[in-house]
Amino acid sequence: MISQKQVKSLHLRKYRSLNNQFIVEGSRSISSAIDAKARIDSVFYTLDFSKKNPTILEKLNKIPSGIVSSKEIRKLSPSTNPSGILATCKIPKFESFNKNKNIIFLDNVSDPGNLGTILRTALWFGIDQIGYSSKSIDPYNPKVVRSAMGAHFSISWLGELSLDDIKGYKILGADHRGKSIHTINIDNQRWALIMGSEAQGISKSAHSHIDELIGIPKVGDGESLNVGVSMGILLHELTK
Amino acid sequence: MISQKQVKSLHLRKYRSLNNQFIVEGSRSISSAIDAKARIDSVFYTLDFSKKNPTILEKLNKIPSGIVSSKEIRKLSPSTNPSGILATCKIPKFESFNKNKNIIFLDNVSDPGNLGTILRTALWFGIDQIGYSSKSIDPYNPKVVRSAMGAHFSISWLGELSLDDIKGYKILGADHRGKSIHTINIDNQRWALIMGSEAQGISKSAHSHIDELIGIPKVGDGESLNVGVSMGILLHELTK
Repeated sequence: MISQKQVKSLHLRKYRSLNNQFIVEGSRSISSAIDAKARIDSVFYTLDFSKKNPTILEKLNKIPSGIVSSKEIRKLSPSTNPSGILATCKIPKFESFNKNKNIIFLDNVSDPGNLGTILRTALWFGIDQIGYSSKSIDPYNPKVVRSAMGAHFSISWLGELSLDDIKGYKILGADHRGKSIHTINIDNQRWALIMGSEAQGISKSAHSHIDELIGIPKVGDGESLNVGVSMGILLHELTK
Repeated sequence: MISQKQVKSLHLRKYRSLNNQFIVEGSRSISSAIDAKARIDSVFYTLDFSKKNPTILEKLNKIPSGIVSSKEIRKLSPSTNPSGILATCKIPKFESFNKNKNIIFLDNVSDPGNLGTILRTALWFGIDQIGYSSKSIDPYNPKVVRSAMGAHFSISWLGELSLDDIKGYKILGADHRGKSIHTINIDNQRWALIMGSEAQGISKSAHSHIDELIGIPKVGDGESLNVGVSMGILLHELTK
């Protein structure tokens, strides 16, 4: 079982990489991890939590687990409102992505909540391969994990990627000045969808790889759409 | 000009209501406020900010403003990473909503980031009237304001509302078990779209008002969609 000191070190990207582990919080996400047979190393929970949530504890079965005080869980947890249960999981090692399936590429997406939403939304639309540029936020950041609500355990491929490695795909870029998503016809082509950063949009270097820019027609006079919302609408149309 | 003590009091809902004011941060949102002729009371910024952003300061014109130290702005700001500029604005008083226009009703939406995203997304699709139940989060909460990125200043009606007051509308409820959004036909009917809370969905009391449940067909095996993403996809289809 991992030490409490090691758990706390996983708040930082450096130690997540070094130890190949990340923190998962809350019964819903931990339950998803168990169901998906994720490699859970250790689980910590409070006495109070165990009294109120007997079902999840039964599911833990042979996973090493320990009761900690509420003071301790506040220290172990990276969040300001810890849920009472916390697990450490191995970061999965993926082989190369499946070149017969569509893929999403995140170009410097930096907001943790947005990345979590992106993972949930991609899965809803059956896209389970996500690549990201080196400047994107770590997908195992605790805030990303929290907002993804268990999506990490259903993704079949998640990794840092260069656009040079995406070959044989129609490369689409999300941009509000792009061709209206209503008029796009993808037929049976495999596609890779690039989503840019919240502040800058798609980077110059990524632009050079794009076959077609696609966008969501603006009906009112809003200034912009959130990157997760945009991707949801694009996937809704692309997977129709 | 408002005192620094009063600014800090606006971190709390109670004092926002008492003083009818809220905090807006960052040059983008403050710029939207100025453009929309919002009633800005005072602006505070650091010397460092003023050197790097002369344009926004010129726009301030006759609005009372003052330079504060970076230590002071950290105290004034409700966020952990203050942007260097902060304004206090009057909370607008709205007349009754326009019964000839569509409206969104938020049924106990409680996450500030989600509410901000909802405001931005609604505006993009030309829906500028938002009502919310008494148990929803305060739309003038600083985290909502930050994630709405200026949307507050383009909304034409925003207020606490009871579903009993929405009469003469086709009332749609967002629910993943609802009728597929692909098959919905709204024609020229005015509609009100109810979005439920992230954890519980639409409440029992709201359900009794609904004419039709509508949902987004799941293509993959994700567990759920974020409320802002769902609303974006529904509005994209409803405003086609």
